[in-house]
Amino acid sequence: MLTRDQCLELDRNDPLRHLRDRYHVPDGMIYLDGNSLGLMPKAARDRVRKAVEQEWAEDLITSWNKHGWFRLPHTIGDKIARLVGAGEGNLVVTDTISVNMFKVLGAALAMRPDRKVILSDTGDFPSDLYVAQGFARFMSNGTQLKTVAPEAVVDAITSDVAVVMLTDVDYRTSRRHDMAAITRKAHDSGALIIWDLAHSAGALPVDLLGIGADFAVGCTYKYLNGSPGSPGFVFVHPTLQKQAMPPLVGWFGHAEPFAFDTQFTPSAGISRMQCGTQAVLSLQALDAALDQWSDVDMQAISSKAHALGTIFIDAVEASSSLTLAGPRTMSTRGSHVSFHCQNGYAVMQAMIAQRIIGDFRAPDIIRFGFAPSYNTHVEAFDAASALCRILRDKSWDRPDYLAKKTVT
Amino acid sequence: MLTRDQCLELDRNDPLRHLRDRYHVPDGMIYLDGNSLGLMPKAARDRVRKAVEQEWAEDLITSWNKHGWFRLPHTIGDKIARLVGAGEGNLVVTDTISVNMFKVLGAALAMRPDRKVILSDTGDFPSDLYVAQGFARFMSNGTQLKTVAPEAVVDAITSDVAVVMLTDVDYRTSRRHDMAAITRKAHDSGALIIWDLAHSAGALPVDLLGIGADFAVGCTYKYLNGSPGSPGFVFVHPTLQKQAMPPLVGWFGHAEPFAFDTQFTPSAGISRMQCGTQAVLSLQALDAALDQWSDVDMQAISSKAHALGTIFIDAVEASSSLTLAGPRTMSTRGSHVSFHCQNGYAVMQAMIAQRIIGDFRAPDIIRFGFAPSYNTHVEAFDAASALCRILRDKSWDRPDYLAKKTVT
Repeated sequence: MLTRDQCLELDRNDPLRHLRDRYHVPDGMIYLDGNSLGLMPKAARDRVRKAVEQEWAEDLITSWNKHGWFRLPHTIGDKIARLVGAGEGNLVVTDTISVNMFKVLGAALAMRPDRKVILSDTGDFPSDLYVAQGFARFMSNGTQLKTVAPEAVVDAITSDVAVVMLTDVDYRTSRRHDMAAITRKAHDSGALIIWDLAHSAGALPVDLLGIGADFAVGCTYKYLNGSPGSPGFVFVHPTLQKQAMPPLVGWFGHAEPFAFDTQFTPSAGISRMQCGTQAVLSLQALDAALDQWSDVDMQAISSKAHALGTIFIDAVEASSSLTLAGPRTMSTRGSHVSFHCQNGYAVMQAMIAQRIIGDFRAPDIIRFGFAPSYNTHVEAFDAASALCRILRDKSWDRPDYLAKKTVT
Repeated sequence: MLTRDQCLELDRNDPLRHLRDRYHVPDGMIYLDGNSLGLMPKAARDRVRKAVEQEWAEDLITSWNKHGWFRLPHTIGDKIARLVGAGEGNLVVTDTISVNMFKVLGAALAMRPDRKVILSDTGDFPSDLYVAQGFARFMSNGTQLKTVAPEAVVDAITSDVAVVMLTDVDYRTSRRHDMAAITRKAHDSGALIIWDLAHSAGALPVDLLGIGADFAVGCTYKYLNGSPGSPGFVFVHPTLQKQAMPPLVGWFGHAEPFAFDTQFTPSAGISRMQCGTQAVLSLQALDAALDQWSDVDMQAISSKAHALGTIFIDAVEASSSLTLAGPRTMSTRGSHVSFHCQNGYAVMQAMIAQRIIGDFRAPDIIRFGFAPSYNTHVEAFDAASALCRILRDKSWDRPDYLAKKTVT
């Protein structure tokens, strides 16, 4: 276990140290909830102001061309593509994860008409499961969602599986899948695969083209700091783009949106995954946020994620009796760390009262997200110390901490 | 035809005159494109700044409760509901028109399993038609989209029609449907009806509950000034809310989103039409924009829309040979006015060069949107004069005006 001084030394030598200044860190706060909502990049604040006061207020409708509003889903998409190994032109920013999941799930199922099983696991983000359940109920043609334990996924990929739909990093336990191995097994069995990268993009190395992923969706308001609720992204492998036809289409996915043809003709490429007009203010915030990543090495991000998590785990385990939820080693873990914790909600309230921000996930998970682009090693150490102190002093045991229910 | 002085007199006596100051009007501009992107309300600018600099930057994840982010789709929805006669709790703001159309189309079709026809008209906004086409192709169970001329809709509602899907105001010609009569005929024939209010909400009186509409979708960035690409809305009649099950569901539509149950249980009310996390910055802009409507009488809005359009039509027809596209009387017309115009694209460029902003829709439509909350009577008069002068002087006949293609 490292000492506090050793953590400070790591911060001094951190090759990503210069990044922290690009984000607004509230005074005296240790923010470990970037896996839920990322800090505000200062450039995003300035960009939104320009988008409102110049582009919307003054230039109005001309901004669609003049300020590149039309291309934003693609310009941002290509910036995200670099972070997840998606290649240029294969990823577009639009709608939400759930809506995008619906599109690619529908496209994938239509490509495997003789198979009826959507395979997922119990650690999948619930909304993805809801999308699949809604889909299966609606089709009423025998399509069904089958969920198994995360560790049982590989063996469950049998010849009746049309689509494997998985979240890379478990939102509670931080358990990470072996994306390459599962993708290979899916393909060997004739199935297609959809990866949800909500807790991966911007925190972990992902190589979508390298592993041959068919589809992926992801989130931009966590580690990518795109602003609260900023639109999601969707990736389709280049070899599938002409074939993959989403059930949900709209004019932004038309080959010629401004021909206003009454007949839908899909765009040839990734653009067919677009549908309606997107929220421009959020897109502009996101585009400015992504500009902070242009000089960032994803291996350095991943190494630092590892270091931060390890410092925290070691320090918590050294001075408390909490049990780690999920795996210990970085190769199988995401960038957040979760512990099982009795009265976890109240404990987290006590942390928050000390301006150390994590979150709680029912039934008993306290969760701490480490964002390598702005969190420091000493923050991980200090947060662990505070947590252990709170547990030792029982300072969580107050009616106001125990009473409320969190919703985030 | 009114004189310019009479228009000035109307402006002096305009009961909605005080509203204009709530919006930012660019210097020297006559903005007649509020049917595409509404002007910026000054309160929206201030609200977005607060949302970025305080809520996101400082309060971060706590803002979901502290600043009511979770409730925004409903709080805004209820404000819009007043403008379209939807009643409280029946309308929610989320996603885009196309995505919402998909949800309600799926819900409606599932409620009429023995019928296979979606009926629409050739004046429907193309993206709605694309949604229906995508849906029909995907179902491959005989579901088909049938389109007829707008004036033939009533007679085409036969006993095989499951759903009538119509846009109230034609985006090109401004032709308005008789919503009450068509809804009645649909119900008499056992069909359900979906109204697209993109060009109606905020400009015309709409009474969804009064006419007994089953479903409606709409847009917030036109006459409601919610910011570029701000989210759409969806209405479900209270008697159908427990029955209407969208094919596309997600965690925000769950009865208990933060229970993180692996099984989807739909919320009992309109909330099931929500799906994923929405763009908060755009929602905040929209909420501030809607606050400008709390004291506005929709009958006064509608009367002024009528007056502005009539001034413009009369003045253009008096001094040019242009042909009006669509109806002349307000009872069958929306709040924009369109003329057929040879070289319409170049003519519009010449208008824009004089800071009079309308838009062009292929093949030959020049379109002018009158937003009763900020446009004045004299603006309508001056825009018409400028248009006639441009036509008379052929000042549109320049290579740079003729060459380009508009995309908005």
